[in-house]
Amino acid sequence: MTTMQDTHISLAHGNGGRFMRELIDELFAKYLSNPFLDTRTDAATLGQHDGSLLMTTDGFTVQPLEFPGGNIGSLAIHGTVNDLAVSGAIPRYLSLNAFIEEGLEIELLDRLIRSLAEAAKEAGVHVVTGDTKVLRRGEGGGLYLATTGVGTRAVKNELSMAQIQSGDKILVSGPVGDHGTAIMLAREQFGMRGDLQSDSACVLPLTRLLHDLEGLRFMRDPTRGGLASVMQEIHRGTGMGVRLFEQQVPVQDPVTSVCEMLGYDPLYLACEGRVVAIVSEDQAELALSAWQSLDQGAEAAIIGHISKDQQHVVLETSLGGERMLEELEDDPLPRIC
Amino acid sequence: MTTMQDTHISLAHGNGGRFMRELIDELFAKYLSNPFLDTRTDAATLGQHDGSLLMTTDGFTVQPLEFPGGNIGSLAIHGTVNDLAVSGAIPRYLSLNAFIEEGLEIELLDRLIRSLAEAAKEAGVHVVTGDTKVLRRGEGGGLYLATTGVGTRAVKNELSMAQIQSGDKILVSGPVGDHGTAIMLAREQFGMRGDLQSDSACVLPLTRLLHDLEGLRFMRDPTRGGLASVMQEIHRGTGMGVRLFEQQVPVQDPVTSVCEMLGYDPLYLACEGRVVAIVSEDQAELALSAWQSLDQGAEAAIIGHISKDQQHVVLETSLGGERMLEELEDDPLPRIC
Repeated sequence: MTTMQDTHISLAHGNGGRFMRELIDELFAKYLSNPFLDTRTDAATLGQHDGSLLMTTDGFTVQPLEFPGGNIGSLAIHGTVNDLAVSGAIPRYLSLNAFIEEGLEIELLDRLIRSLAEAAKEAGVHVVTGDTKVLRRGEGGGLYLATTGVGTRAVKNELSMAQIQSGDKILVSGPVGDHGTAIMLAREQFGMRGDLQSDSACVLPLTRLLHDLEGLRFMRDPTRGGLASVMQEIHRGTGMGVRLFEQQVPVQDPVTSVCEMLGYDPLYLACEGRVVAIVSEDQAELALSAWQSLDQGAEAAIIGHISKDQQHVVLETSLGGERMLEELEDDPLPRIC
Repeated sequence: MTTMQDTHISLAHGNGGRFMRELIDELFAKYLSNPFLDTRTDAATLGQHDGSLLMTTDGFTVQPLEFPGGNIGSLAIHGTVNDLAVSGAIPRYLSLNAFIEEGLEIELLDRLIRSLAEAAKEAGVHVVTGDTKVLRRGEGGGLYLATTGVGTRAVKNELSMAQIQSGDKILVSGPVGDHGTAIMLAREQFGMRGDLQSDSACVLPLTRLLHDLEGLRFMRDPTRGGLASVMQEIHRGTGMGVRLFEQQVPVQDPVTSVCEMLGYDPLYLACEGRVVAIVSEDQAELALSAWQSLDQGAEAAIIGHISKDQQHVVLETSLGGERMLEELEDDPLPRIC
């Protein structure tokens, strides 16, 4: 940042001229440098790969930009990498769009992009192309990011909701609701504080472990709308019912406490580093022990099953009752990711 | 839109639940439907292609969202498709991110996405994956879009600045500055009106014509920063000088008039449907007649050449004088694309 004299982003950083070039060279390219990224070209040439390619995209608007356990930079990697991972792919290439609000501190932007670059490195992906736009003061929430990922297919059997069968088990790789709750606390809008960390992480180590498992039917990461929304999607996509057991669903104590106090349901709160997997009944325990062999999956659990005899998503509560998990209507928590 | 009762976007359209699903199904998927797009999956599987793949991305924040000759929807296709086209690729797949401000009229969003879908169809690309985020009222300029494109390489010889040689000719496919000027007029902030249209268009028909031309060295579309900034990039990238002839550079009369009145230089204003090509001296006329054979290239011109004996970007003016075209510093016109 030696020749960038400004401490804050100005409109001139978005104009296609010298300031934009310096911002890209001295901040983005400094951290993201890799053999495929050339900020002087209009398009990056990708390497040769055998097998199918998969493509996905995600936008990020989380507020605050930095929160316990992560920030919008690392989240922008995890979100897109995880969508490829749960689709049975190895993430390879990413594009990055940054919409930067005029007035953003360059030091903050520097931290966020450094963190983004570290997360990309950890996930083994290259950011090969990017674009920055500067938004007028007041026309953007500090920073919005979008990433698009391309990966190579790594599983032999097709993963899709069409593969799901009655009796299949539902696994989750760790406690749910951490990200949503951590963001709520970080906003301090409820007058509460806490040291709960977001679970934001790359789930590739978890999904890789299941690549060769014949009984693997489908995976999804429970982000916006949380675990309950993934269950709703499966219900809608398969026409079969879902039965969950509240006692089996891992939820951290501080998440339970905060949710009880504020009237949220942890099952509807976003995770950013968890995987839900649907696995055949006979291989569910195998998948579970594979996950539990990793620190990241230490609290993995079998939380329910698919049932063709049911028409809803039903939660069997700790007290032995039943509760329907309906599709989300109001937004419990905007700008969570 | 039969079951979407709302007339404006609300935060609930971004929450991962029912309203978001309806918005995606009944607006985005309705227009963008194609064999690769499945709004129920986390990632799209791409087709098999021989040869190298290229990847590029662009963000769009243009204001107003609709302007004479285009809108942010069609622009979001043209911008990314054109970056692939000038890189010598055939665009194949796009991802789409939409950051939608709470309160945006759904009818307007519908028009914009319909236009985006038409532009994609015309360019022969499929939008295979997408994501929407809703921004709180006041935290977004109505709508921001980002598109990432993947294409297949279609030229045999490498196109890059490293191929450029002294004596090479510089071609432009049509008048410059139309988009920038049309946006200025559409904003009516200067108390001026006019019926000038943006040149926003897919340039693939132009670039395709040069794919097999052995003397083709490099192409670029002069967007933000305009023709002058592309010349600066070539100067910086090759270490050679650039000599342009003002009389040869096509500029429409209304563009000249508006720029004269407001003190802008058309050479620095964005185009969104033009190509600059650097071609060997002996094949420049061939390239020119190829372009002129299309309506889109009817006003194409050879506007200058590369010279190793020069150290700058020099414009020989109509009056016979010389003017340096420096790198852009201030932003003449924010949110132009």
